[in-house]
Amino acid sequence: MKRNTLLALALLCCSSAFAQDIQLPAPNLNRTTLSTMQALAQRQSVREYTTQSLSEQDLSDLLWATCGVSRDENHRTAPTAMNRREIRVYVINDKAAYEYLPVENRLAHIADGDFRKHVAGPQTFAATAPVCILLVGDFERFGSDNEHARLLVAMDAGIACENIYLYCASAGLATVTRAMMDVDALKAALHLTDRQVPLLNNPVGYPKP
Amino acid sequence: MKRNTLLALALLCCSSAFAQDIQLPAPNLNRTTLSTMQALAQRQSVREYTTQSLSEQDLSDLLWATCGVSRDENHRTAPTAMNRREIRVYVINDKAAYEYLPVENRLAHIADGDFRKHVAGPQTFAATAPVCILLVGDFERFGSDNEHARLLVAMDAGIACENIYLYCASAGLATVTRAMMDVDALKAALHLTDRQVPLLNNPVGYPKP
Repeated sequence: MKRNTLLALALLCCSSAFAQDIQLPAPNLNRTTLSTMQALAQRQSVREYTTQSLSEQDLSDLLWATCGVSRDENHRTAPTAMNRREIRVYVINDKAAYEYLPVENRLAHIADGDFRKHVAGPQTFAATAPVCILLVGDFERFGSDNEHARLLVAMDAGIACENIYLYCASAGLATVTRAMMDVDALKAALHLTDRQVPLLNNPVGYPKP
Repeated sequence: MKRNTLLALALLCCSSAFAQDIQLPAPNLNRTTLSTMQALAQRQSVREYTTQSLSEQDLSDLLWATCGVSRDENHRTAPTAMNRREIRVYVINDKAAYEYLPVENRLAHIADGDFRKHVAGPQTFAATAPVCILLVGDFERFGSDNEHARLLVAMDAGIACENIYLYCASAGLATVTRAMMDVDALKAALHLTDRQVPLLNNPVGYPKP
């Protein structure tokens, strides 16, 4: 009985946690976006956004572009050094924080609250974006954290953020890549370990007319 | 007279150097490329290339995509931290090495010789690509080289190499981003200073059928 009660409790906790997850719609690879040349031409850093939230489809497409599964063997849209897949993608809006799980195409709920201010740090404009994407380097996954490893993981974060930039340019969204943020507050809010390091973030929204 | 002779000699040297430069055709921003979503879907690492050289138009478009001037105030297709524009782009083929000058859209001749073997290092496949693009972080331009600066410059190199990847995917070219190379040999061949650091390279060619 005691064992069954514990099991029931565990299941309840799990289902309660999962209940706050968000299953994203499948990314729409045929959505109308600019050609790559035009996206490169129009990419720019935009720091003003309307308050309109991203639809779940827009968010799904954006996250897939950032670091989604593009083909067999779970290869990603963003390459990583030695295919270590150490860049974790977090989604932070006005109500909660999630981790994007590329294989499941799901947002795993992490914590309730508006943590955009931690993404913003002293540049408060970033807290006005409807959603912030945070790129975290996971050195546990990477397998080492010496200086060379830190450079490679930083490069991989740069790669993923350029996907965000080009996707936004091609789909009519506004963004800017930033390295500034309140790292300690984000580590606490997102329950990151010492080996999971916030590296870059992108506030994303619709551009002001 | 002595002064005039020196001036004439200087002009002769300059014109001799410039004579080996290559003025690239204007990038064709309307060339038919895949949509950004499709480029993201098809981007992959390819390590086999035909021996066919890139046409000057293809090379111009590739380099513009990497780090070209996209709009007013010489803004680039690849953003850099605090707009420092510290990523230098080198072009290495079987005959010579050049630096890509984005504003002039020109290849500045640096040295004759086939330095692709230095790009390849132990992975000899890279020396079979008709052209290798090398991304160099210029810490003189960046203004500092502490650990934080090194991470930011590494991120910027990652950003530029993702432009290469996505352009190649969208235009039917094959490439792979690599951090492996013979750094010391490249620094000597390209006359780099101690503050100019090779970070990433991309062999580029047409895919084998």
